Amino acid sequence: MNLEIKALIAQADRAIKEERFDDLMEFYTDDAVLIVKPGLEAKGKQAIKNAFIKIAEYFKNSVVPTQGNMVMIEAGDTVLVLSQTLLDAENKESSDYSMDRRATYVFRNINGKWLCAIDNSYGTSLLD
Amino acid sequence: MNLEIKALIAQADRAIKEERFDDLMEFYTDDAVLIVKPGLEAKGKQAIKNAFIKIAEYFKNSVVPTQGNMVMIEAGDTVLVLSQTLLDAENKESSDYSMDRRATYVFRNINGKWLCAIDNSYGTSLLD
Repeated sequence: MNLEIKALIAQADRAIKEERFDDLMEFYTDDAVLIVKPGLEAKGKQAIKNAFIKIAEYFKNSVVPTQGNMVMIEAGDTVLVLSQTLLDAENKESSDYSMDRRATYVFRNINGKWLCAIDNSYGTSLLD
Repeated sequence: MNLEIKALIAQADRAIKEERFDDLMEFYTDDAVLIVKPGLEAKGKQAIKNAFIKIAEYFKNSVVPTQGNMVMIEAGDTVLVLSQTLLDAENKESSDYSMDRRATYVFRNINGKWLCAIDNSYGTSLLD
């Protein structure tokens, strides 16, 4: 387990909860990709920030993500994180999307700093 | 879909089937990690090659991997591949491991060449 990455994910979750989306962008590479929902990608910090603003609106500004069980596979400057991601929101009962996910994140070490390059909270369920 | 990576995975599957493990190592980065089975990693080409030799023995030299449905998420020089991986083997009925998997592979572009850095055929099932 890469504890630095684990701490970064916890900080990012807190930034999402508090809707500090400019701070949140500090966790991503410049060419990062976020899977907004199956079939929809946001590429680059500006698009990712806009997507998070829309996600917050969808969940009526009440999103609280937390990570459960986590496994990391570390290959030099590249780390694959598998993580049980729990999303809580006031209107979660009416969400079209699963609130209990098995996410896949790819982190890269760039100039000594770990950054998220791929943020796919849907994991392998994109194969459904 | 990155067709170059799709072709590389097909070539690697053929090398596994034909037990050309030196050729197979050409697909990996120097510090690549293979998840041999849940809880067991092979790190680096020599360890990965040895693991493939043991896997071939376990399956009585009859392993045939093929990929089904595939999704790729591309962020610059880093690609996350989600793939339905089917393993066939003469003794598959007695295997302790699933023969129908949802794999997660991470490819990196290094000096213009796509190489596999993380080979995790177990996908998010490592969270079980």
